[in-house]
Amino acid sequence: MSRQATAGRQRGQAGATGWPWGTTPRLESRSFEDVTGHLVIEDIRPRTPGARRFAKAVVGEAVTVTAVMFRDGHEPLAGRVLLYAGDRRKSRARNRPRPESVAPLTPLGNDLWQAVVVPARIGPHTIVVEGWTERAEFRGDPEAAPDLTASNPMPLWVDRERALVGAWYELFPRSFGGFRGVEQRVPRLAAMGFDVLYLPPIHPIGVTARKGRNNTLVAGPDDPGSPWAIGGPEGGHTAIHPDLGTVQDFSRLVQVVEANGMEVALDYALQCSPDHPWVTEHPEWYHHRPDGTIACAENPPKIYQDIYPLNFWPPTDSDRVAMWNACKAILDYWISLGVRIFRVDNPHTKPMAFWQWVIAEVQKKRPDVLFLSEAFTRPKVMARLAEAGFSQSYTYFTWRTQQHGPEGLWAYLDELAHGPVADYMRPNFWPNTPDILSGPLRYGPPSAFALRLVLATTMSPSYGVYSGYELYENLPASESNEEYLDSEKYEIKDRDYDRPGTLAPLMSALNDIRRRHPALQRLRTVRLHPSTNPQVIAYSKLSDDGTDAVLTVVTLDPFWPQDAFISIDLDALGLPSDRPYWVFDELSGESFEWFGANPFVRLDPTYRVAHIFDLRKPAGGDGRGW
Amino acid sequence: MSRQATAGRQRGQAGATGWPWGTTPRLESRSFEDVTGHLVIEDIRPRTPGARRFAKAVVGEAVTVTAVMFRDGHEPLAGRVLLYAGDRRKSRARNRPRPESVAPLTPLGNDLWQAVVVPARIGPHTIVVEGWTERAEFRGDPEAAPDLTASNPMPLWVDRERALVGAWYELFPRSFGGFRGVEQRVPRLAAMGFDVLYLPPIHPIGVTARKGRNNTLVAGPDDPGSPWAIGGPEGGHTAIHPDLGTVQDFSRLVQVVEANGMEVALDYALQCSPDHPWVTEHPEWYHHRPDGTIACAENPPKIYQDIYPLNFWPPTDSDRVAMWNACKAILDYWISLGVRIFRVDNPHTKPMAFWQWVIAEVQKKRPDVLFLSEAFTRPKVMARLAEAGFSQSYTYFTWRTQQHGPEGLWAYLDELAHGPVADYMRPNFWPNTPDILSGPLRYGPPSAFALRLVLATTMSPSYGVYSGYELYENLPASESNEEYLDSEKYEIKDRDYDRPGTLAPLMSALNDIRRRHPALQRLRTVRLHPSTNPQVIAYSKLSDDGTDAVLTVVTLDPFWPQDAFISIDLDALGLPSDRPYWVFDELSGESFEWFGANPFVRLDPTYRVAHIFDLRKPAGGDGRGW
Repeated sequence: MSRQATAGRQRGQAGATGWPWGTTPRLESRSFEDVTGHLVIEDIRPRTPGARRFAKAVVGEAVTVTAVMFRDGHEPLAGRVLLYAGDRRKSRARNRPRPESVAPLTPLGNDLWQAVVVPARIGPHTIVVEGWTERAEFRGDPEAAPDLTASNPMPLWVDRERALVGAWYELFPRSFGGFRGVEQRVPRLAAMGFDVLYLPPIHPIGVTARKGRNNTLVAGPDDPGSPWAIGGPEGGHTAIHPDLGTVQDFSRLVQVVEANGMEVALDYALQCSPDHPWVTEHPEWYHHRPDGTIACAENPPKIYQDIYPLNFWPPTDSDRVAMWNACKAILDYWISLGVRIFRVDNPHTKPMAFWQWVIAEVQKKRPDVLFLSEAFTRPKVMARLAEAGFSQSYTYFTWRTQQHGPEGLWAYLDELAHGPVADYMRPNFWPNTPDILSGPLRYGPPSAFALRLVLATTMSPSYGVYSGYELYENLPASESNEEYLDSEKYEIKDRDYDRPGTLAPLMSALNDIRRRHPALQRLRTVRLHPSTNPQVIAYSKLSDDGTDAVLTVVTLDPFWPQDAFISIDLDALGLPSDRPYWVFDELSGESFEWFGANPFVRLDPTYRVAHIFDLRKPAGGDGRGW
Repeated sequence: MSRQATAGRQRGQAGATGWPWGTTPRLESRSFEDVTGHLVIEDIRPRTPGARRFAKAVVGEAVTVTAVMFRDGHEPLAGRVLLYAGDRRKSRARNRPRPESVAPLTPLGNDLWQAVVVPARIGPHTIVVEGWTERAEFRGDPEAAPDLTASNPMPLWVDRERALVGAWYELFPRSFGGFRGVEQRVPRLAAMGFDVLYLPPIHPIGVTARKGRNNTLVAGPDDPGSPWAIGGPEGGHTAIHPDLGTVQDFSRLVQVVEANGMEVALDYALQCSPDHPWVTEHPEWYHHRPDGTIACAENPPKIYQDIYPLNFWPPTDSDRVAMWNACKAILDYWISLGVRIFRVDNPHTKPMAFWQWVIAEVQKKRPDVLFLSEAFTRPKVMARLAEAGFSQSYTYFTWRTQQHGPEGLWAYLDELAHGPVADYMRPNFWPNTPDILSGPLRYGPPSAFALRLVLATTMSPSYGVYSGYELYENLPASESNEEYLDSEKYEIKDRDYDRPGTLAPLMSALNDIRRRHPALQRLRTVRLHPSTNPQVIAYSKLSDDGTDAVLTVVTLDPFWPQDAFISIDLDALGLPSDRPYWVFDELSGESFEWFGANPFVRLDPTYRVAHIFDLRKPAGGDGRGW
């Protein structure tokens, strides 16, 4: 048979090799027909483990595709990456549409190749890597190459940019007097540069077993209860707590938020108070003890006496179908009111199969809807939820307070940015949450709040704070747990956000710096730089096109001044090695003249916890240099 | 449906999860039926990349199986590993035979689990990992667990022990006067402790374009030519060079070797001199230039003017079938004469598909036949040949002369023992070959030969030397290449192996130590120990059962004494931290009393290049301690 014909058949196959690698056919098999190149294309990134679920990217992001490609013999190879819109894993090559993006592979050495493609639309995509033996007679025309070999098609999900980049602000609307009060606050949050307003559950709260202040088991008559104890006589997950306002008030809030360039994220907490309408309408959706009572929720070591977990595997399959549909209907309802982001409460205590189904089902029609996973659980489970479809994940950032060691910030940032999970799990760094007051924030000085905020905002393209952070709320419920004293989960908080000396100006400055620096809107380009002092951490980021470069240096010590020489890779950062260069500190407005790869920094937390250096700004720009 | 029935169906599936992970079924699909545990079992080792080819083990080896296993929720899990004889990847679970070995999984933390199974027979095997939710009512009876989940079945090839462990000795029979002369030498090699006698090609050698001494292009009338220029009027790959003896002489040599407890390895070099019978019988099996002449072989930068490569993709498929069968017939012939090991010349210049087919085809009937890959090529290609089926591989050991850095011995040993390739590629360390005189051996003193030999013999369970090593042959052909001056490839060498002062006593001692220490017959248990001096490398190995422990400390400097404190992990080696302990040096017969985790060593290469410490021998054993 002709080589041309073979190349055609080869391209039609999904496999990356010219013969069946898993098992060995008989010698006479057509599987052994001449495929001149005998090309192997494997180990393609980005991918999930097993490559069966979607890797992730956002629109306009430079997606670096790498693959191992080689053949027997010594002839030179060439290759390219094709990015198709749609999930084309089951399409034959000839039936695929025109690719959205095509990029030539360049060799990185040791049979590793790389290309960069840029997705233009949201929704499912497919990556195919093609390689061929580069021969003079076919040069420049891969279609004519006799051994054109296509890799297995790799699925890539492309989200809107908010899936990767965003500044979140969490507040309890009841502490602001409901939706109307929150409305008043929105322009200020927008002016501070926040992108997402995240509201804990806004639904009716149960009375049965309601928690009192400080998580006590008996509520007083005026205690409002935990918003996560969802459901009462007024309704369940599609109802609104009467103290917060009406559905019209909610819709108006959504509009005001949007008019201010932000969007609302709602809590999706699949659990019920004993007073939730489902408890009587659908007792079969709950776990029953042998005595017939319903078991309450646990997320060890926590016990939620005021909450019933749902049983996602009720006795009959039609019960399951009904219940899962009811859970999805909650999302559909809030989406119909304009919500496009859901923060999902404890997804690891519900089946992966449910998340896989519900996220795919929602995104099939609304690929712009995003889901943040709140799974403070083991790394494999956290990653698996990202694989199941979650757009973002809370992380262990809150507990990463040292630079070095297996539990240090260095190792963690490296894992999130460059490890296998970097291909499909996007972090959202929260210095605090209503549940978590940790590390140097406990009894911490303002400098502790400042340095953790700088770390979160410059390390992760997505970050969030829970209101009160800017007021340095630092008192834990007890030495032994991470809850806040007088937690807002169980009471209404009346705070003075406008008093002098809050962290709000730093928040505003950081959000502004993040918006002006594309480098800070990316994670995978991060590079860690050794420092002579473990209390001083340094890392840089580049924008996709390399024109923006930011070097951040932060002290991890909120109390004492710390000095360090840091070691930067001048070549990688585009800095000269043979002459001085200027770095501009976005936080202080100062410029510094540096020379060489080991600059000296001193950070005194009484007035400065970090430098955020723009490495591309000419000296003296904005008249602020010296 | 009942949970029992579900468990049964679940077990019948090949997948590790209770629902289809790659794509999402409709909500009503039976794929979503209740599988209580929602167990995930993935990332199983040992495996090849993609898990489609055989991982490797030998009979009696403790095979450590690890898997990531977890489920949603908080219930405790349990699991086990089943090892089945045969390739059962396509069998349904219920049709699999009784497992050869079953072992409970123990948790290592972070959702990683481990079990050890020991294969008892050679040939294909299948590993299945099973997990279930541990509930009181089912404890101890996995078959009754409602969510018993089986992993994808993983293929494991089990070889005889020689695939992992062996001391090879390579010699050119013509330098010993042919097979009869070699016969005389065999008892001495056996007494020195060698296991494998490897003979370069023993076939007739071409006259056309024969190479002269030192790889010159014109041979003198008495030049014997390179044995790798196979084929002449006397025959091809199934013929014997008349100067070496007859087929009866060869058979007798095989018998003598076996009688001495060794075995013969033959070279399988699929290339032909221009005088090979195939050149006239099957011109279609060669690459023709446009002018009709046949192209000679190249393995850049080397050019083999005296060799024609075969074209494994001849013009028609029936030509291919005929040619591949002819190549296999060569193996069949020598196997019929008692050969069970083949050292394969430059397999990376032939198609992977051929190796995959021919090795599987041979091992289908003769699973005891072993293949050593001589592919001094890029790491991905070297690994791919192991994946294709080669039992062993030559390595980069010859060029790894420093301890640290990406090209250092530390990183390389770690990669071979613990990296992904450890699961399916077995190294064979050669300090020298007829082609390669490298590193400190070039113009090197006897100490250089000693230290490289200690490294090879203690790092790798399989190693080999090419004769002349014990005589410290150290003169390269030129500064710029790695060939020997007056290479035996092109001339007959008459050496005096029995002169005083050779390295033979050290070879004998090392082979003896290797035989007495099961720890040295394993690779995956190796542990590297930091040293304060980069010229001193330290590593330990344990036997499968932990009862044998050997710590080797070697100087990399053949010229000057080197001191170091080494840092050993007392717990891992079973040594006490609270009192002194004795270590016995197998090389010198001395015992040393050590205390703590940082012993001091001094190695003066004028009399001692290494310690090989038995860590389990009581002080003063054999009356040699002090």
